[in-house]
Amino acid sequence: MSLRVLGVDPGLTRCGYGVIDAGSGRSASLVDVGVVRTSPEDTIDVRLLAISRGLEAKIEEHAPDVVAIERVFAQANTPTVMSTAQVTGVAIVLAAQRGIRIALHTPSEVKAAVTGSGRADKKQIQAMLVKLLRLDAAPQPADAADAVAIALTQLWRGPGPVRRDASGGARTSAQSVWAEAERAARRARDSSTSRF
Amino acid sequence: MSLRVLGVDPGLTRCGYGVIDAGSGRSASLVDVGVVRTSPEDTIDVRLLAISRGLEAKIEEHAPDVVAIERVFAQANTPTVMSTAQVTGVAIVLAAQRGIRIALHTPSEVKAAVTGSGRADKKQIQAMLVKLLRLDAAPQPADAADAVAIALTQLWRGPGPVRRDASGGARTSAQSVWAEAERAARRARDSSTSRF
Repeated sequence: MSLRVLGVDPGLTRCGYGVIDAGSGRSASLVDVGVVRTSPEDTIDVRLLAISRGLEAKIEEHAPDVVAIERVFAQANTPTVMSTAQVTGVAIVLAAQRGIRIALHTPSEVKAAVTGSGRADKKQIQAMLVKLLRLDAAPQPADAADAVAIALTQLWRGPGPVRRDASGGARTSAQSVWAEAERAARRARDSSTSRF
Repeated sequence: MSLRVLGVDPGLTRCGYGVIDAGSGRSASLVDVGVVRTSPEDTIDVRLLAISRGLEAKIEEHAPDVVAIERVFAQANTPTVMSTAQVTGVAIVLAAQRGIRIALHTPSEVKAAVTGSGRADKKQIQAMLVKLLRLDAAPQPADAADAVAIALTQLWRGPGPVRRDASGGARTSAQSVWAEAERAARRARDSSTSRF
């Protein structure tokens, strides 16, 4: 059974999600992509609940092995960074409640994994997604495309250094089981020489 | 039936909670206080799940009318601010899932409400809690005391300007019902001249 990753681009107005399945070698296929939208007219509790329900529905529908989330730093765009972190907390708990492993990736890690350059722009990322996933066009809006890129990053980088970076601590035994499954998947990928 | 408030001082290592019931006039009584602790040795998903379960248990046990949470700004202590915001998101969704209204209060609002000065220190706040709630000693640790202070702030400030500040938008109808109930409670308090 191939590894399935749900990528999440956390945001309060548009929370992107993208589900991919690992193929042979470094190939992957797109299973689902979209955004959960909330209105700035609504209060923060109504909005976070809508995102929680939207992401929960996608987790229940697709049963991912890992939930990968973009890591946002406090130094970033201040007005939105706190609500982005709130969405991140909600997404992490949704995964943890189901024993699904989580990982966090920085924007530059995502850019580097998908395009080979940590300074790639949105257009370059979207062009790579079209190529890598054999799509007719890049997922829209940008938040949806970003979520797919985060999922691909998880597939290719795996849990090693990213995992330590995301946790700042040791793994629990349940997480070790997931890590082992991922290592097996990575070994399968590494044993192939095809890159596309 | 008197208004019951659950105050939350969001934090990843120690998440404080305090439950108070409104009394006559501006009096209040302490129902429960404590902290949900998590270990820095554990991963972020394990820690957020533990806090989610701990707060959920307290919400189920005490059925608060309002959940009041300390509002943290991105400018604050950077290393912990993101995890604090993640805990905040989790707490907001726990309340929203149950139709419980939420409110956010800044540290200076809490200090001003409890001591009369927005620049009060921890000792002054704790001394006021002992007096206001007729306790033998201030709740320990400080995170637990802070949570009680946040709950008192909600009781006394009510949903008016704080609510608008917390939401940045209009109220939904379900929230209007809560707001109406709170207004009724505030009217009852305002009609009394006693302050304790």
